[in-house]
Amino acid sequence: MPDSAPPHAVATLIDRIRTVVGDRGLLTDPIDTESAAEDWRRLFKGRTQAVVRPGTTEELAAVVRLCAAAGVPMVAQGGNTSMVGGAVPNEDGSELVISTARLNRVRALDPIDMTMTIEAGVTLKAAQNAALEKDCMLPLSISSEGSAQIGGVLAVNAGGNNTVRYGNARDLVLGLEVVLPDGTIWNGLRKLRKDNTGYCLRQLFVGSEGTLGIITAAVLKLVPRSREIAVAFCSVPSAAAALDLFARVQAHDAAAISAFELMSGLGTDLVLRHIPNAVLPLAEPAPFYVLVELATPRPNAGLRASLETVLEAALAEGVVVDAAIAESDAQRAAIWRLREEHSEAQKREGASVKNDVSVPVSKVPAFIDEATAACEKLIPGVRAVPFGHMGDGNIHFNLVQPIGGDPRWFLDQDHPIMDTVNEVVRKYDGSFSAEHGIGKLKPYMMPEWRGGAELDLMRRIKDAIDPRGLMNPGKVLP
Amino acid sequence: MPDSAPPHAVATLIDRIRTVVGDRGLLTDPIDTESAAEDWRRLFKGRTQAVVRPGTTEELAAVVRLCAAAGVPMVAQGGNTSMVGGAVPNEDGSELVISTARLNRVRALDPIDMTMTIEAGVTLKAAQNAALEKDCMLPLSISSEGSAQIGGVLAVNAGGNNTVRYGNARDLVLGLEVVLPDGTIWNGLRKLRKDNTGYCLRQLFVGSEGTLGIITAAVLKLVPRSREIAVAFCSVPSAAAALDLFARVQAHDAAAISAFELMSGLGTDLVLRHIPNAVLPLAEPAPFYVLVELATPRPNAGLRASLETVLEAALAEGVVVDAAIAESDAQRAAIWRLREEHSEAQKREGASVKNDVSVPVSKVPAFIDEATAACEKLIPGVRAVPFGHMGDGNIHFNLVQPIGGDPRWFLDQDHPIMDTVNEVVRKYDGSFSAEHGIGKLKPYMMPEWRGGAELDLMRRIKDAIDPRGLMNPGKVLP
Repeated sequence: MPDSAPPHAVATLIDRIRTVVGDRGLLTDPIDTESAAEDWRRLFKGRTQAVVRPGTTEELAAVVRLCAAAGVPMVAQGGNTSMVGGAVPNEDGSELVISTARLNRVRALDPIDMTMTIEAGVTLKAAQNAALEKDCMLPLSISSEGSAQIGGVLAVNAGGNNTVRYGNARDLVLGLEVVLPDGTIWNGLRKLRKDNTGYCLRQLFVGSEGTLGIITAAVLKLVPRSREIAVAFCSVPSAAAALDLFARVQAHDAAAISAFELMSGLGTDLVLRHIPNAVLPLAEPAPFYVLVELATPRPNAGLRASLETVLEAALAEGVVVDAAIAESDAQRAAIWRLREEHSEAQKREGASVKNDVSVPVSKVPAFIDEATAACEKLIPGVRAVPFGHMGDGNIHFNLVQPIGGDPRWFLDQDHPIMDTVNEVVRKYDGSFSAEHGIGKLKPYMMPEWRGGAELDLMRRIKDAIDPRGLMNPGKVLP
Repeated sequence: MPDSAPPHAVATLIDRIRTVVGDRGLLTDPIDTESAAEDWRRLFKGRTQAVVRPGTTEELAAVVRLCAAAGVPMVAQGGNTSMVGGAVPNEDGSELVISTARLNRVRALDPIDMTMTIEAGVTLKAAQNAALEKDCMLPLSISSEGSAQIGGVLAVNAGGNNTVRYGNARDLVLGLEVVLPDGTIWNGLRKLRKDNTGYCLRQLFVGSEGTLGIITAAVLKLVPRSREIAVAFCSVPSAAAALDLFARVQAHDAAAISAFELMSGLGTDLVLRHIPNAVLPLAEPAPFYVLVELATPRPNAGLRASLETVLEAALAEGVVVDAAIAESDAQRAAIWRLREEHSEAQKREGASVKNDVSVPVSKVPAFIDEATAACEKLIPGVRAVPFGHMGDGNIHFNLVQPIGGDPRWFLDQDHPIMDTVNEVVRKYDGSFSAEHGIGKLKPYMMPEWRGGAELDLMRRIKDAIDPRGLMNPGKVLP
């Protein structure tokens, strides 16, 4: 931990920063600083004296040099959409927020190389759109994509819906530009598919949550735009049947799977009850539902027929109870909405405790069954509403409060609930944070889950790259 | 650099090691130690007093602890197939070779998770076969796969023929088990597709060429086995036309491309001349040839028709001069042989200087044209025989000696030749080592290409993880 610089030193520092970034690059109005100091989930309320918004990488590097010289810690912030308080400053106001919002240019996009070079402040949605304009696709999709910025997306190694096909954010990164803790710019913006020249630094910064440096730009891999998409919504008798269906789709046409999402009957029921115009496209409710999406850049590849073949066999053998294949873009969107509105529907139903966990894909049914039973034993009447990315083993195992219970009492049970869920996660060698990262919320869990040699290595790396602990203190490492 | 332990200390150490690994785990016969101390390209001839072959990870860790206590440096070795002398000990005999050859079990293979857990000493070929037995595929293919071992394959982040579709070795790694420089075992053998819990250590060890620790096992991603494969051999008027063809195949059916290989007319001519039974499947020779392979796990996906559609249009527009599509497995193998025998044919033609370089895919034609002209200017009569992985921008830009010239004189020109080629590589922001790594051959090039912030970061990481410099000294970092 750094020694805090005295307040007057920070005031002098801010004056110096103003000469680098200008008035436009410096927000000191409490409206701005307070908003930047709190995360959207309202888990953490910090304080900061300024939000610095450099307009270029060089400006950002100059700001970091000034902060480093003054010994003032820095918190990098993009869209401030962290699920774990990864981008909020601490409570004592000693840290400055450095926003990447004005680094928002698409520097290059080449449809032959299938790469885009993009600055940290571009939103994921804008990046997706820039790719689509050139008939390419940035195959990364998360619910916060309208405000999440590329820098944050990479810093936390975002996952999302298409990981089953394309991997996580890190799998799309070919090159990075990073401002290091001493203000040096590392320009690693290479567009190469093969480059074995020393340690793979980019993968160290991806997922480091701003604790090793500030990502200012990246070269991302693109894929060709999908030209045929087939989506089915299926009811299944159990999570085990959902896994059986996954194996069948995989065996039949694995390369075409772009999403395989699981929803519980209860969770889907909450969506149907609370979300206007949500409609179940099947005649009868069921214990679990699956959304299967196939996609390919080749037009007329026969994906729908392919999907029908698998589903017919699964229906005949009772693995699937009923299924609807979307006949139009509108139907496809309606099916996806049943999945995407799960969080919102849970919110409207009352208090809920969230667990973003993963296990090996083959263990998902056992995990869901056992974690549900364990939570129901812990809190009678609790409602488990597991949903998420079954195809990559990442389940949002959320618990909704018992009907008529006290929401505040329920929220106070968050630690016992998380511990109960995590005990089952651990049994299956899973992860206590699949795609949301560690941030400020979960560093205390690191020693138990990633302790020993692993945490020791992480600490050595942190000390080697940020010896004074100036970058996003208190995040990731306990 | 470590201080060398005195010879008698090494003798004592070897005795201690014997008590851990037994006679079977310790080779001290000069026949064994000399063979392990030289690389197969015969670039480097080192010396070692023993080749240690532990039978388990625990044994290997105990050996590392003993070496660390004695201050004796260690060189990890798998199949000893490095192209850059990455696994040979130094000349003074002060380093011990630690072989992973006996860590050769497939610990697990799950066709639902699509993962295999495999020890470092399994050959890549054996790993591929183990996957195929379960109807899965390990989509990594390199010429040395029969002897290259998984540990080395990961340590050097091997690339090969299918990178255009599946990425490099690092893209297939979900988890690792590593013995650290102090002999601690880091068990990071997770099978998770999503796991955002701190720094991504596995990607640091992958590609570190044994300088940070010894990889003893890994969890690798598998993909479903290809059930339909279509291969075409095409003649094209220029490298630019080859790129045009790549863009066309990409636009038509990018997700199906599993290889896109370029060969020069001259290089292919050498294969036809020197390799028995090699036959050009086209009527006329051409300046360049392309091998296109499409593959999919879905049977009867119509890949051949898809390929024909693209080729017909390309033929009509003069982008392709002639093309043959393989009608049988035998024809497919014969076409692949024209590509795979390039190195052997060059060897038989005389002395040659190799450059394993990459540029962005879109720059491949300009790079080939300019590098060819520059080399011909440097050495009149030199024969440029570029070939390789056009789909991922990795060209083996090899130069064969002038006809009738002195091979020894030509080999002495290796540095001027490499410098000439690299000047063009640099112009296109390419890499001087695309898939072969740095090893002992190329550390001297690191300051010029990866100097400044990047090399400084690498050194800090090396010092943090291997502070005494005991792991594979003299490799990667200058």
